[in-house]
Amino acid sequence: MRLRKIKNAKEIIEQNNDLVLLEPNQYKGKWQDVFQTDHPIHLEVGMGKGQFLYEMALKHPNINFIGLEVVPSVLIRAIEKYEDNRLPNVRLLWLNATELTDVFNNGEVDRIYLNFSDPWPKNRHEKRRLTYKNFLSIFKEILTPAGAIHFKTDNQGLFEYSIQSMSQFGMYFKFISLDLHNSDFEGNVMTEYEERFVELKQRIYRLEAQFHIKDDSSN
Amino acid sequence: MRLRKIKNAKEIIEQNNDLVLLEPNQYKGKWQDVFQTDHPIHLEVGMGKGQFLYEMALKHPNINFIGLEVVPSVLIRAIEKYEDNRLPNVRLLWLNATELTDVFNNGEVDRIYLNFSDPWPKNRHEKRRLTYKNFLSIFKEILTPAGAIHFKTDNQGLFEYSIQSMSQFGMYFKFISLDLHNSDFEGNVMTEYEERFVELKQRIYRLEAQFHIKDDSSN
Repeated sequence: MRLRKIKNAKEIIEQNNDLVLLEPNQYKGKWQDVFQTDHPIHLEVGMGKGQFLYEMALKHPNINFIGLEVVPSVLIRAIEKYEDNRLPNVRLLWLNATELTDVFNNGEVDRIYLNFSDPWPKNRHEKRRLTYKNFLSIFKEILTPAGAIHFKTDNQGLFEYSIQSMSQFGMYFKFISLDLHNSDFEGNVMTEYEERFVELKQRIYRLEAQFHIKDDSSN
Repeated sequence: MRLRKIKNAKEIIEQNNDLVLLEPNQYKGKWQDVFQTDHPIHLEVGMGKGQFLYEMALKHPNINFIGLEVVPSVLIRAIEKYEDNRLPNVRLLWLNATELTDVFNNGEVDRIYLNFSDPWPKNRHEKRRLTYKNFLSIFKEILTPAGAIHFKTDNQGLFEYSIQSMSQFGMYFKFISLDLHNSDFEGNVMTEYEERFVELKQRIYRLEAQFHIKDDSSN
């Protein structure tokens, strides 16, 4: 049953290969050719059902958005959003974050969004968290020197961990909100998860982090 | 009326000059002589009525504690705690944090506590916040290379600001709790303020921050 579901998902993904680029390694260093513009590239790692990416792309036509999702059954939910409305500034990737350096050159990405990433709360799963140092190292490589990670979550433990992990990696923070929906931050675009948590009056945590440009050599 | 109150406070302070060291500059580099031991020195900047310092000193006889307070009428409330019980490992200073480098040599302090510091919420008062870069620079000078700042507050805005300011100064975090009293942190000693906020079920934020030892030269 599960296999059958995945098989169907794969077929749907393959049928939409203008939106989901199936062999993205060939575009490494050539993403301007894909989009036919030199607009900044913003990447969402773990886009889930893709509402955030879709709305951001509508709102910001002069930015090119690329969404990553590794779970096929989730990826097809994102694909559905573009069924009647292909956006020229969006591409999706069926990819694990560990493969990002195969797909993007050094400094090819301007911003990375991490939205409600899996918290992996058990200590033995620390290495799976997207703010673990191995992932930060990948993000640092593909981001421009002034590039930033924009991260939000409802998970207190993941947020605490991420501040520690990022600061220990030499990153610094420019914007932190410990209660996004009661802050003066403007222009927030919500994910599906976020809408649910906000209804439950739960806090959303958000930060923007950059790598130390001056101390580039130390990491 | 106010002058009279301050005058009385000054008299009380002077009468307790074995506890409150009135010319502390003379001990710079010689704090081991004051305490007659080479135990680590922990400093609380802005100790208020001094409950935290008093309880910490009772609990940790092998650490020497120094409490700073600039407001005389508040300082005498702290003095009262030691009226019938002078502790050998405590001294108080009637001092502004800006004067710390006159009183301590480089690396003479092992830990700095900032508890419920004045949030100075207005932007134009940023320079008065104890986690503003000018104060961090002072703290860095007097702390040992592996020394840490332990900071807690109920003030969300000050906590957000402090993470940003400290990270931009090159500091990194080893322990962050966004809800101290619902965390697994053990051995917390409460301040007078903290007791009140905990009764009101308000969150207490806490962090431990260190200066980048490897990147010492960059700041």
